[in-house]
Amino acid sequence: MNIRDTSALLAGVIADVQGSPDRRELPIQRVGVKGLRYPLRWRSAGGEQPSVGRFGMYVALPADQKGTHMSRFIALLEARLAADRPALDAAGMRAMFGEMLTLLEARRGRIELSLPLFVRKTAPVSRVESLMDYDLSIVVEGDDDSPVTTMTLVVPCTSLCPCSKTISEYGAHNQRSHVTVSVESAEPIEPEEIVALAEAQASSELYGLLKRVDEKHVTERAYENPKFVEDLVRDVAMALRRDARVRGFVVEAENFESIHNHSAFARIES
Amino acid sequence: MNIRDTSALLAGVIADVQGSPDRRELPIQRVGVKGLRYPLRWRSAGGEQPSVGRFGMYVALPADQKGTHMSRFIALLEARLAADRPALDAAGMRAMFGEMLTLLEARRGRIELSLPLFVRKTAPVSRVESLMDYDLSIVVEGDDDSPVTTMTLVVPCTSLCPCSKTISEYGAHNQRSHVTVSVESAEPIEPEEIVALAEAQASSELYGLLKRVDEKHVTERAYENPKFVEDLVRDVAMALRRDARVRGFVVEAENFESIHNHSAFARIES
Amino acid sequence: MNIRDTSALLAGVIADVQGSPDRRELPIQRVGVKGLRYPLRWRSAGGEQPSVGRFGMYVALPADQKGTHMSRFIALLEARLAADRPALDAAGMRAMFGEMLTLLEARRGRIELSLPLFVRKTAPVSRVESLMDYDLSIVVEGDDDSPVTTMTLVVPCTSLCPCSKTISEYGAHNQRSHVTVSVESAEPIEPEEIVALAEAQASSELYGLLKRVDEKHVTERAYENPKFVEDLVRDVAMALRRDARVRGFVVEAENFESIHNHSAFARIES
Amino acid sequence: MNIRDTSALLAGVIADVQGSPDRRELPIQRVGVKGLRYPLRWRSAGGEQPSVGRFGMYVALPADQKGTHMSRFIALLEARLAADRPALDAAGMRAMFGEMLTLLEARRGRIELSLPLFVRKTAPVSRVESLMDYDLSIVVEGDDDSPVTTMTLVVPCTSLCPCSKTISEYGAHNQRSHVTVSVESAEPIEPEEIVALAEAQASSELYGLLKRVDEKHVTERAYENPKFVEDLVRDVAMALRRDARVRGFVVEAENFESIHNHSAFARIES
Repeated sequence: MNIRDTSALLAGVIADVQGSPDRRELPIQRVGVKGLRYPLRWRSAGGEQPSVGRFGMYVALPADQKGTHMSRFIALLEARLAADRPALDAAGMRAMFGEMLTLLEARRGRIELSLPLFVRKTAPVSRVESLMDYDLSIVVEGDDDSPVTTMTLVVPCTSLCPCSKTISEYGAHNQRSHVTVSVESAEPIEPEEIVALAEAQASSELYGLLKRVDEKHVTERAYENPKFVEDLVRDVAMALRRDARVRGFVVEAENFESIHNHSAFARIES
Repeated sequence: MNIRDTSALLAGVIADVQGSPDRRELPIQRVGVKGLRYPLRWRSAGGEQPSVGRFGMYVALPADQKGTHMSRFIALLEARLAADRPALDAAGMRAMFGEMLTLLEARRGRIELSLPLFVRKTAPVSRVESLMDYDLSIVVEGDDDSPVTTMTLVVPCTSLCPCSKTISEYGAHNQRSHVTVSVESAEPIEPEEIVALAEAQASSELYGLLKRVDEKHVTERAYENPKFVEDLVRDVAMALRRDARVRGFVVEAENFESIHNHSAFARIES
Repeated sequence: MNIRDTSALLAGVIADVQGSPDRRELPIQRVGVKGLRYPLRWRSAGGEQPSVGRFGMYVALPADQKGTHMSRFIALLEARLAADRPALDAAGMRAMFGEMLTLLEARRGRIELSLPLFVRKTAPVSRVESLMDYDLSIVVEGDDDSPVTTMTLVVPCTSLCPCSKTISEYGAHNQRSHVTVSVESAEPIEPEEIVALAEAQASSELYGLLKRVDEKHVTERAYENPKFVEDLVRDVAMALRRDARVRGFVVEAENFESIHNHSAFARIES
Repeated sequence: MNIRDTSALLAGVIADVQGSPDRRELPIQRVGVKGLRYPLRWRSAGGEQPSVGRFGMYVALPADQKGTHMSRFIALLEARLAADRPALDAAGMRAMFGEMLTLLEARRGRIELSLPLFVRKTAPVSRVESLMDYDLSIVVEGDDDSPVTTMTLVVPCTSLCPCSKTISEYGAHNQRSHVTVSVESAEPIEPEEIVALAEAQASSELYGLLKRVDEKHVTERAYENPKFVEDLVRDVAMALRRDARVRGFVVEAENFESIHNHSAFARIES
């Protein structure tokens, strides 16, 4: 469907309030739609998976234009995410960004997508398989020639406190932590690669399904591998630095402390 | 994979703490896993759609049993939601409930699933199509012979205030509202039927994509059709009463008032 | 301010749409306002504390009445929570419930209040003091003669897995858990009593501020005191049963597992 | 209590793991505690009010230091928010920031506080008074000599769609919107000033309590004063530009559209 032609047609019948000129001389960096939920098939290194994404889509508006055409964002999603179209991936997000600028007649813009990423994992001893879920978001922002793509993953893991281990005769407090990694890269990086990179630095990684032999293994692994929140962000940052594709990153770690009702938190930005 | 056999095997090597007897003489009505997120394909009246569900799975535990076998719940999800299995639907939820009781050797239990439901809608004048999203949850609870299935839908809609319309010379405050309908039924009801039933009672229904001719239509329709929160719950309750399949229901309406920073709320239970 | 007199006055000038009769013959169990946030001073066993409460206030509406008078709920909160009025406590909630029924000319109703409860705690070895926060909610519901008051506390604590401890050569996974206790009582119970009762059953309680000697103590205490989610609900239920004031209760425990990305959950109702 | 002396004492008995040197040569920009909830009295232009704040407190950690001293953040909050200390205000936040750097022996840091702000408002016609609640956050960040204070307010208001009004024979869709204003200023600005500035640009402001004469007034006022999300951010940005104290700002507007299930959104940064 040609949305702009339809709009032109309607413009003869019903006033186009958004299309009128604006005299406040204030450009708007970002205007669009937020909180759009859509079913889709997602594709990355682990293959294709059913998913539900939440989208934000925005364009820059010049100072002399009163408003943008909100319905065109929805039309673009409808067209791109139709059931007979290929699964969405990071490259598809980049292509959709270009189409959005064209359709909205804009020079700059921003697309945000948040969705769960499911990774099939194998338990360390029993080898039983199960899915783990991570929160993935992808932002494409800039102009059509050189937009920047930023990928963010929230990687839940176990952290075990080095202090607690050292000072206690037995045991050590441990807890679920969130390691959040944002990466801007020169070449494409698969989200599953970032998950694996972050998990390798945790006291232990998490699994959906563990048999008793696995539970023994992850318990002992965490105990052998204590990490402060400071260690988590430093070790993940070191691993990102060794990857030549990474141009910039932010690493955050939040420990939902099992001995407090607040979190320990650290952040490194590069 | 036969989980129980594997467990039996492991029991010889590693202590089965959950399997030991309990002396507190307290049965537990509900024990299991909560907050499990899984990719799936959902099927109801509108066809099949990619989705992500959040599951809670619980069984009753007799007084003399110390603990349940948490990993079996995950194994069941893994088996039932595998990519080569049919899409999940309400009947599939009922079947999974039975399998859970068998696998967990339990007499009573409860499965909860929450997922978004997407419905393809046609704009009232331009006939342009788009998806609308609703929150759907399904609970199956009871024993294996006669479990009760409850379906709940959160249906966002427009409400326009009758008082504001009557007392004002022009305009009337209106806002987004959530009509939440829980239905227990003797025969299956499709979630799309409940959506349509609730939307028919709103000041206006919502759409993803509206052209200007449609926006004029829904604006005027809402103005012609003012409803208090009390009207919303009564009118939806009346419609549910006319449906012979419905055995019991709860209807709630929450108006996110556009003139206040709180909600107006009403609830009818039958 | 006498709201009803003012309303009567206005009724002569501006149509009273809510006051008109209704012909659908459907009583409404609950209609009112939701999500009202108010500053207040809270008083319970631990003394008076600055607080912010979130209120829901509802009345039953007879079948022949079109709507309730929403503004009267707000007027009641304004009057009751004025800065020069005494701090709010559980008895004050009960009194406010009665005033609400009178003001709204209703026979039945429901008031809900959610607020944080802060308890001053002393670290187990260093004796250093700090505050811990809990979520408290109080619901008063019924008619004016015999309303039922239900108090619910979310008590965060540590749980350490008995299975993990038994099968592992060293360490044991542990995590933050939420024990949620709802109590309906014949005589008043202070929320701080419920907090203490629940914490006594955890692997360890939590603290805001711990010195290293304290961290050693809570780590070892949790290791000596492993609990499944099933143990948590049973042990809290046993303690509630021993309290003659308790007429009914619900106990839930949710472990935010440090080896999984989902929760273990149990619930006992009595 | 002198926390550092106590720490020194304990260091002789129990290993100080955090205090050991680090060899990864990676400074950490931000390490500390997050999600701390505390009761407090807040003071700004509208006077003193009971409140509950949520704090994040972080310092920069040099490359050669393994960890920070988490318990000192809590000790600072305990000391500063004690019941016998003056109410907290923006200047108090700035002072607490300096104390934090000293106590943690850090050169740079960041304090975040989020709390509700309650403003007493007078209904436009009846003059009846009630409270409105806003979300306020204050961030102090930088070094001790020239930290930057940023104040952010989420101001809920009514927006009425100019397009819907123009094209419809009667009515116009309107909805609750959030105008979010972040301000960095050379001189102190009271949060209540930002609230008033933003509300003046909305189609209408919101109130807790409105009588029917007021409801008529705000309904008609919104209808006379339609605003797109683009208009909201531009008009608020223009007002901020006229205030000589403002050094930089971000203005966002999100309309929770009453005809869609998604938001319209705009953002201006200066």
